[in-house]
Amino acid sequence: MIIKQLTIIGVGLIGGSLARGLRAAGAVQRVVGASRDEQHLQRAQTLGVIDDYETDLGRAVEGADVVFIAVPVGAMEDVLRRIAPHLAADTVVTDAGSTKASVIAAARAAFGDLPANFVPGHPIAGTENSGVEAAIPDLYRGRRVILTPTEASSPAAVSRVRALWQAVGAEVVETSAEHHDHVLAATSHLPHLLAFALVDTLARLDEKQEIFDYAAGGFRDFTRIASSDPRMWHDICLHNETALLDMLDRFTDDLSRLRQAIAEDDGDYLLEVFSRAKAARDEFCG
Amino acid sequence: MIIKQLTIIGVGLIGGSLARGLRAAGAVQRVVGASRDEQHLQRAQTLGVIDDYETDLGRAVEGADVVFIAVPVGAMEDVLRRIAPHLAADTVVTDAGSTKASVIAAARAAFGDLPANFVPGHPIAGTENSGVEAAIPDLYRGRRVILTPTEASSPAAVSRVRALWQAVGAEVVETSAEHHDHVLAATSHLPHLLAFALVDTLARLDEKQEIFDYAAGGFRDFTRIASSDPRMWHDICLHNETALLDMLDRFTDDLSRLRQAIAEDDGDYLLEVFSRAKAARDEFCG
Repeated sequence: MIIKQLTIIGVGLIGGSLARGLRAAGAVQRVVGASRDEQHLQRAQTLGVIDDYETDLGRAVEGADVVFIAVPVGAMEDVLRRIAPHLAADTVVTDAGSTKASVIAAARAAFGDLPANFVPGHPIAGTENSGVEAAIPDLYRGRRVILTPTEASSPAAVSRVRALWQAVGAEVVETSAEHHDHVLAATSHLPHLLAFALVDTLARLDEKQEIFDYAAGGFRDFTRIASSDPRMWHDICLHNETALLDMLDRFTDDLSRLRQAIAEDDGDYLLEVFSRAKAARDEFCG
Repeated sequence: MIIKQLTIIGVGLIGGSLARGLRAAGAVQRVVGASRDEQHLQRAQTLGVIDDYETDLGRAVEGADVVFIAVPVGAMEDVLRRIAPHLAADTVVTDAGSTKASVIAAARAAFGDLPANFVPGHPIAGTENSGVEAAIPDLYRGRRVILTPTEASSPAAVSRVRALWQAVGAEVVETSAEHHDHVLAATSHLPHLLAFALVDTLARLDEKQEIFDYAAGGFRDFTRIASSDPRMWHDICLHNETALLDMLDRFTDDLSRLRQAIAEDDGDYLLEVFSRAKAARDEFCG
């Protein structure tokens, strides 16, 4: 598969790494970067991530075989509205949004109807690092990319997007947007919410300096995802509300049972939960 | 400082690493290991971690300059009761328990009164790994060790324990048992409880295999501490109940405000919390 022109809207870690990966694989001829920030685009060009750039999204997608949108999910509808009138009939559009039902709703709003060439996607890679400077060609090697084709997505468009990700070494799977949002709420969105919440709780204690001074390696790992981009996670929480709140409520119920067990010295229950958790974690995460 | 005989009760990662570190520093002549499990002690001897061993705790502490107790905090009172009648007047006793008020209460119960030679301590190192096979001489290098001397602890005994930890490269600080328990509830006990709870919540979902399959690096880091020893953490939760429940309630309140903000589309509040958390985490954890 050779892409003559790939247009990337939002040239950060995710978009930049796709550009570098496709280039390394000889799978793209020309990469056009687009965003509102011209200085940022100049830097991406200097770094060799993109060949050219456009600050006007309409002009940026002209002549593109594939448009890859890697912006926070809260900006998705605006981007889709801006590019919609300028897309050629055969231009394939895909994205990297962390929530999928909301991106599909944004596309429906922007296009009036879901286009056959629109294939929503989500590469499971990279969180707390960001920025085009961190972009590497191997970011997606061995990583999973979830595609959530709509009922309107054409098989040809899905194949094209699948081939693009396979060219950079990713493993592509397909599922429904609803199922994606449910699973990601569990493994990504809720953990981020908990990490942000815990660090904020501690940061508001009087002796916060000392609290963090006494933190060991386990705390560092546990809170690493609280260094993620606040704006991006603000968007995710608001755009996967139903699934996230459902998962949060399950967790809160379980946590309150643990609280009760501690208060009542019910050691058997604690041991049961901790043992089951350790077994699951050891089995699945190695 | 040269210790003629160090007796270690509970020869795992924590006790074994202290033995190896002191030996590497030339600070100990003879290390006696003690536990109920003779096979385990034989392995520790074969590995060169201990010189001799005893399964009878009373005999194990005879002739010791320093006794180091590295058993789960739930076993502390029993161990102290067993060794109390056999300690020489000048034998210094210290421990590695993760909760300190409960260990002091155990000592008071075991000895009748708090001995001048008893200096409670807690090295902040190692969690999800365990076992004497993992013991290394450098485990404590650059790590913090918190001593919580009682009102009865003699300055000479405190100095002795301080010197022991400094010999293996640790940074020693002193605080009260209550303050230790409050700070550790925040940075260690609550995070472990949350990690166990989250993994268990997900492990009980119908599609647990798939849930874990889709987990990325952030989830792996976030849940690493859920691979810790369930029995040890059962003990810690029950032995630091007051401080842990206080911290859990603060966290739960904050989490429920975040839930409300998501449900009400209050993006400003989410952005405020996430930004404050990121800033704190970046400042304190680098």
